[in-house]
Order: sequence, then C-alpha cells, then structure tokens
Amino acid sequence: MDEPGLLAANEAFYAAFRARDLQAMESLWARHCPCVCIHPGWSPILGRGPILRAWAAILANESSPTVEGLDPQVVQLGDDVALVLCIERVESLADSGIFAATNTFVREDDRWYLAHHQASPIAVDDSPDEPVAPADLPN
Amino acid sequence: MDEPGLLAANEAFYAAFRARDLQAMESLWARHCPCVCIHPGWSPILGRGPILRAWAAILANESSPTVEGLDPQVVQLGDDVALVLCIERVESLADSGIFAATNTFVREDDRWYLAHHQASPIAVDDSPDEPVAPADLPN
Repeated sequence: MDEPGLLAANEAFYAAFRARDLQAMESLWARHCPCVCIHPGWSPILGRGPILRAWAAILANESSPTVEGLDPQVVQLGDDVALVLCIERVESLADSGIFAATNTFVREDDRWYLAHHQASPIAVDDSPDEPVAPADLPN
Repeated sequence: MDEPGLLAANEAFYAAFRARDLQAMESLWARHCPCVCIHPGWSPILGRGPILRAWAAILANESSPTVEGLDPQVVQLGDDVALVLCIERVESLADSGIFAATNTFVREDDRWYLAHHQASPIAVDDSPDEPVAPADLPN
C-alpha cells in the first residue's frame, strides 16, 4: 500500500483549497476515470469539467472557508483505488464546522488522482482530535 | 461494467434497511476489504464489526426512518471497485429529508459487496426527481 503517496495527494488537495490555487486543484483530479464531487449541502457533481468549474467559483469566492484535513486514514480498496478518510476543520468569517470527508483516489500513470470527494457535517461534540472510531482495520 | 449487478447490490442495501433485516444487511458488507460507514451527522465508523453493531441499533430502533435510494448511477473506478451514487429520500415520523449517498462496492468472490457508505444532507430544493448535474461521463 502506498500510504505516503496517498497521504501526500490528500494533503495536496487541502493545500490547493487553502491556497485558492485552481491550477493545483485541476492537477489533482483524475484524467481518465470518471469524477464525482459532493460538497456539503450540494447535489453530486459528475465529470471533471463541471467539478472544476465549481471549484473555480469556490476558490474565487473571498468568503469561502479555509479547510484543514485532519487525522487522515488510508483505506485501500484495490491495487489502484484507495480512500483517504479525514476530518475537515472548516473556518470562515461567518462560521466554522467539522466535516467527515472521503477522498477517493485512483492510480493513473503511476500517480494518485482524486476521483471522488464527499464531505458531510458531523456533530460538533466529535472532537477533531479524536474523530474516528477505534480502527480495527483490516477487518 | 457490471451495471446490473451493482444496481442490484445497491437496491439490496436499501431493501435491507427498509425491511430492518440485519441478516440481509450483514450479508452485503465486504468480507476481506476494510469497511467504512459514515451516517449523516456521525463520525466515520471503521471496520465490519463496528459498522454492523451500529446497523443493529439503527434497524432495531422503531423511530429509525425508512429510506429509498433514488436515481442510482454507477461510476466504475476499477475492475473490482465501483461507486453507486444515489439520492436518498428519508422519511420518519418526526422528519424527512433528502441525502446524497455514495455507496462504494468491491468485487469479492465474483460478487459485489459494500465497502463504504456515506450520506450527506442536501438542500431541499434539490428535487429527488432531477437530483444530479447533467452527467458528462466518461469525462
């Protein structure tokens, strides 16, 4: 399992978000595999083009939040597909919140690319320092 | 792509939920692959055992909602890994809501099993009849 590569790809996603760097964000999404992005409260967006147009709007919006991806955990589903679960700490001028995120990566041309992102709000009493149930992986 | 098999596995998940059939639910989750379940508002649950204990509590709870999985769409990520996206219409005595769900299936022993489920609330003006952005798959 390429845990270092997956963790680096996951962190690159949040770094691109924080830097509001659309070019970096664009570089992270899969070229060949179909892509899906489910932002909190949104219907699923399907396809690389629509996903990147939505990111362009989000990253250009000054009121968009800053996001950290905390406590990442890699879950390998196949040789070339893996999830990285993490807890997103989201802060904006208006609000803040904690989200559970699944980032699904596929390996293309020997590099990990995002194929799916979904973030869901979780109860605020879930401390971001200890967010995930005791892992008994592999199960 | 085994779209019929994946759609059948996805529908079996919602049928088990509606029937409050823990044995059927148990039969759907992967044996060998690590499993993850993110219920709305919950932190991620990792591992087949903890996931099924949570389902036992949900299915035994008379106030748990009934759920339909509408408009399923298959997104193949690899030979043996695929997402089924759908819109969940959730109804309970107290409340109702619309959720975007990702159900991630892995093929084990020539059968599709759930390895990951995540459901997120989406805005109520997203009609369940037309929930997903125009798909331009493959992208």
